[in-house]
Amino acid sequence: MSEPIAFVPRAGFEQADAWLGALRQAMPGETIVPVGAMGEAQRRAVKVAIVANPDPQDLGALPGLCWIHSVWAGVERLVADLGETDLKIVRLVDPQLATTMAEAVLAWTLYLHRDMPAYARQQRDALWHPLPYRRPGARTVGLLGLGALGEAAAAVLRAAGFQVRGWSRQRKAIEGVECFAGVQELDLLLERSDILVCLLPLTPQTTGVLDAARLARLPRGAQLINFARGPIVVEAALKDALDAGHLRHAVLDVFKREPLSADAWEWRHPAVTVLPHISAPTDRETAAQIVAGNIRRWRASGVLPPTVDARTGY
Amino acid sequence: MSEPIAFVPRAGFEQADAWLGALRQAMPGETIVPVGAMGEAQRRAVKVAIVANPDPQDLGALPGLCWIHSVWAGVERLVADLGETDLKIVRLVDPQLATTMAEAVLAWTLYLHRDMPAYARQQRDALWHPLPYRRPGARTVGLLGLGALGEAAAAVLRAAGFQVRGWSRQRKAIEGVECFAGVQELDLLLERSDILVCLLPLTPQTTGVLDAARLARLPRGAQLINFARGPIVVEAALKDALDAGHLRHAVLDVFKREPLSADAWEWRHPAVTVLPHISAPTDRETAAQIVAGNIRRWRASGVLPPTVDARTGY
Repeated sequence: MSEPIAFVPRAGFEQADAWLGALRQAMPGETIVPVGAMGEAQRRAVKVAIVANPDPQDLGALPGLCWIHSVWAGVERLVADLGETDLKIVRLVDPQLATTMAEAVLAWTLYLHRDMPAYARQQRDALWHPLPYRRPGARTVGLLGLGALGEAAAAVLRAAGFQVRGWSRQRKAIEGVECFAGVQELDLLLERSDILVCLLPLTPQTTGVLDAARLARLPRGAQLINFARGPIVVEAALKDALDAGHLRHAVLDVFKREPLSADAWEWRHPAVTVLPHISAPTDRETAAQIVAGNIRRWRASGVLPPTVDARTGY
Repeated sequence: MSEPIAFVPRAGFEQADAWLGALRQAMPGETIVPVGAMGEAQRRAVKVAIVANPDPQDLGALPGLCWIHSVWAGVERLVADLGETDLKIVRLVDPQLATTMAEAVLAWTLYLHRDMPAYARQQRDALWHPLPYRRPGARTVGLLGLGALGEAAAAVLRAAGFQVRGWSRQRKAIEGVECFAGVQELDLLLERSDILVCLLPLTPQTTGVLDAARLARLPRGAQLINFARGPIVVEAALKDALDAGHLRHAVLDVFKREPLSADAWEWRHPAVTVLPHISAPTDRETAAQIVAGNIRRWRASGVLPPTVDARTGY
């Protein structure tokens, strides 16, 4: 029988029990124990922990820990909390997550493309006023981030007829997508994006990357979708660009502090659609299966899935 | 040189000049003259008229008229105005129209699928509340009408992962779509449709077909999209179903009277999204090209494109 696996959720995490249940169901041959419920002998034996934004102290109580598996795709908080560490971090790479995110990108791109915010305003005024229609082929969607999520998003946007351009840290080659790379080419992407979709990981390099100067590079009347992380966009710069009419509309699913406080300006801004971080909810059952598969392969061969690069943060 | 072609828009049609320009540009070898500007000899010579909801009297002034080509896909007003006639009617069948309509069906299906109306309400209350996510594979979209528009819509909905069922007067076979046919099978489609999309032509048979009894067949919480014609849905029955919460939401692009009057209940109903007949605007340039192609083939071979069946009305 193998040593037990520690389950380390953050304190007060509402869904901890549901996750523990899903993980146990996906790994009936493993003993998965919440770290707080482990005895001294069990804690000493642990080699792998499954984590959900854990308190670093809880991980410190596991002296033989070799690697940790996050149940989420975004690990910026984990990386920041752990600081310099030899611990190997595996994040969730769920193909279903990419599919769901691509669906969200398509849904809210079409929302902006088909002028749904403007028609909602007209409805409030009982105003019957057809707006000019533009074909998707006459509209360029710029994707910031071309990882698994960005690539899936590019495919559905292309199938819907949009012109798609993409940007990533390192150059990618994706059929039918004009790809830009590196800080020096970011402005080239921005200048041509009628709808800009942010899918970047949050790292020291991407924090605040969409500042006033970068937003000014977007064509007048451009629209923004942020499905990544709040701090990538400089909030005050975004508000200014919307107030000035340089940006026509922003769909924001992520914020610096979540939940967004009731007095935040975003709720009431006529050119902002606020979503409560719902673009691509992690599916507990598929996520648990993926974690289980990674642990099974490690048990069998000692090989870890790709781990998070501490330099880049993803 | 061929005889002239009459252009017969309805009186007061704002875009008449723009259409005339587009048609002339698409057919540089033809003489296209507004019927009101024709002399007696020209009128007697006319064999074909290009029409935009014409006044029947204007057509009566063309004694040698063999066939008319509508610049629009919907010809129910034309068929009703003309009554019994030997005149052959050709309606616009524009592949671009089907593409644009399919895009609209996908856009507003995703709007309902991803709970955008509920999130808009929550935003008004500054309420951060993620709603449960359902995968598109767990949702059935029922299509009423499986002509060129319905078939194009079915394809994009399937690609987005939805279960798709369809209904038409005569049975169709579409890969991956469960097809129902005839009045006797309509209830079978309704019972299984989480989102019902209406793309039917308006005919005596489809007028009022979505009445209280049929709407009651939909599962509780079902949602409706009407992109076809207003009178297909019995308005009072729809209001009752929405008020009772049997239907969760309706997206209405078409109405009995258009523009919708400012005091209509639809504008203010929290479970209704009103659109000003914009789901699939006719593209003047592509439409003019299609009319031109049909006239060119008729000049060359005497063969007409498929004509409207006076019995079915489409």
